[in-house]
Amino acid sequence: MTHDPVIAIAGVTGAVGAEFIATMDRRGFRVGKLKALASARSAGKTVDFRGQKIVIEELTERSFDGVDIALFSAGGGISRKFAPVAVKAGAVVVDNSSAFRMDPNVPLVIPEVNGNRIRDHKGIIANPNCAAITALVPLWPIHQNNRIKRLIISTYQAASGAGAAAMEELVESTRANLNGQVFTPRVMPHPYAFNLFSHNTAIDPETGYNDEESKVIKETRKIFEDDKIAVGVTCVRVPVLRAHCEAITFECERPITEDEVRAILARAPGVKIVDDRAGNYFPMPVDASGQDDVLVGRIRKDLSDPSGHSISMFVSADQLLKGAALNAIQIAELLPQRAMA
Amino acid sequence: MTHDPVIAIAGVTGAVGAEFIATMDRRGFRVGKLKALASARSAGKTVDFRGQKIVIEELTERSFDGVDIALFSAGGGISRKFAPVAVKAGAVVVDNSSAFRMDPNVPLVIPEVNGNRIRDHKGIIANPNCAAITALVPLWPIHQNNRIKRLIISTYQAASGAGAAAMEELVESTRANLNGQVFTPRVMPHPYAFNLFSHNTAIDPETGYNDEESKVIKETRKIFEDDKIAVGVTCVRVPVLRAHCEAITFECERPITEDEVRAILARAPGVKIVDDRAGNYFPMPVDASGQDDVLVGRIRKDLSDPSGHSISMFVSADQLLKGAALNAIQIAELLPQRAMA
Repeated sequence: MTHDPVIAIAGVTGAVGAEFIATMDRRGFRVGKLKALASARSAGKTVDFRGQKIVIEELTERSFDGVDIALFSAGGGISRKFAPVAVKAGAVVVDNSSAFRMDPNVPLVIPEVNGNRIRDHKGIIANPNCAAITALVPLWPIHQNNRIKRLIISTYQAASGAGAAAMEELVESTRANLNGQVFTPRVMPHPYAFNLFSHNTAIDPETGYNDEESKVIKETRKIFEDDKIAVGVTCVRVPVLRAHCEAITFECERPITEDEVRAILARAPGVKIVDDRAGNYFPMPVDASGQDDVLVGRIRKDLSDPSGHSISMFVSADQLLKGAALNAIQIAELLPQRAMA
Repeated sequence: MTHDPVIAIAGVTGAVGAEFIATMDRRGFRVGKLKALASARSAGKTVDFRGQKIVIEELTERSFDGVDIALFSAGGGISRKFAPVAVKAGAVVVDNSSAFRMDPNVPLVIPEVNGNRIRDHKGIIANPNCAAITALVPLWPIHQNNRIKRLIISTYQAASGAGAAAMEELVESTRANLNGQVFTPRVMPHPYAFNLFSHNTAIDPETGYNDEESKVIKETRKIFEDDKIAVGVTCVRVPVLRAHCEAITFECERPITEDEVRAILARAPGVKIVDDRAGNYFPMPVDASGQDDVLVGRIRKDLSDPSGHSISMFVSADQLLKGAALNAIQIAELLPQRAMA
């Protein structure tokens, strides 16, 4: 007999944790029972879910007994330690951290791109990096139509990608700046108020690429199952709260026009074209925030490639939704009912 | 007999106007007399210059009698109307607007790149677009060494490029946002608080490129005197006050390494390398603001070009200084003394 699945959320007090709950509620995701897990510090507090107060429990080795699906968003260290425990207890893990993404035994899934890969899982399914998801949802249908061989991305990434504390730091440091007060950064490595900086992940001393950029490059190849796609990317943190933007230029194997790209994207799942030249209206974080779709605009010929093989565009997506919680819930929705028997 | 030049500033109450005065003062630029010109609305107010209160006069057809050098930063319309008047009165005009930049009779000058072109002037010298200056100061010595044939730029442009009113709107709309108040944009076409948007200039309905992007493309070719350089650019306005950033990827005719680029830039005028991988410290608006140099970092191989012909880097420069007032004063400093006889 099947039952509505028991869901555990590891990291329920985080920015993504809150969106797991809101997204399940909004999409009518069937939940038999919700286990809200966090660090000992938060145990005993409550979260609201469908009119109920759920008491937060400390995440321990015994947290996953009877759990069907475990959604993890509590950092790579927690995932590495507890995801195998959850799998052993019989749960399927959908992991939002980078811990298992490049593991050949772990599918790395964007449902609009490679949802069929879910069937290969051995207990863990990885949710890709948010900057990768934002680019790849619109690029995939183009790549299927006319292989993308070169990809250059510059990101404009929101505070939310670094968690709730980073969002709070952006707000508090901006308030201090406006009041003429000194603010010492605690979460981010640099002042954030009216400032921007190269992504706050470690830099490979040899290549000069930071971890975020390396994730985009590797994950693009794994998700597209194309080891040859050449990717250059610059990841930048901007003073925006929760939606990422990206300036994308791609070069295809055969010539491609902006009209072809627009026609492909008009029927692409998870994509909304926002490309009003007369009204100067294009994808913006304020519009992408709270939306499920990746907004795509500024679709035009890349004038740096006279051969006509290249297109530039500008995209925006909610980092906490399609970049994290929504994509994970979409993965959970694709899990066969037998996993929950 | 030579005398210290009589300087007129048209647009003295604007964000760039204020920096003309501060920059002349800071650099010890010799001024015989300063004429402060603005619209009738500001006439009678004063500006401070070297301990003197200078009374602002209304800009009229008679404002340029006896003026040696006229610095214009009051928009293209004012420049088109009054720059020829100033030239007729015997002044040399250094114009910060886009009005004359592509005029074949008008030199378009970045002193570090093509200061020698000043000698060709017929009364007007144009100051390039700020996003173009920021990219071209570091790219020029590379281009001389190993021709750049393809250039892809994504900008992160500050409010100051749209003037003092836009800077104020960023501050006021952010304050309102933090206080939970509704703010209706007056200067910018979109909400600016914790948001970003495609550059607020008109879009060519055919090409899909906005005016700012077209300026970068055309001005790069004119300043480098290279009609073949292929440029793709995406111009974006970010919620930063006065320094622009740009993610730049360029492809050279011959292979080039990041070490070669670093060596070239280490001796390039107007460039300061800020490229600390271990410390995750790279060019940022907070550091570029108030600085004369273009900060350059994240210098690395472009991984989207396996041939080894391409490099990516990230730059930042003060839009009001090197992007506007400083570059104009540097041009004025190069004017031969005989022009002021």
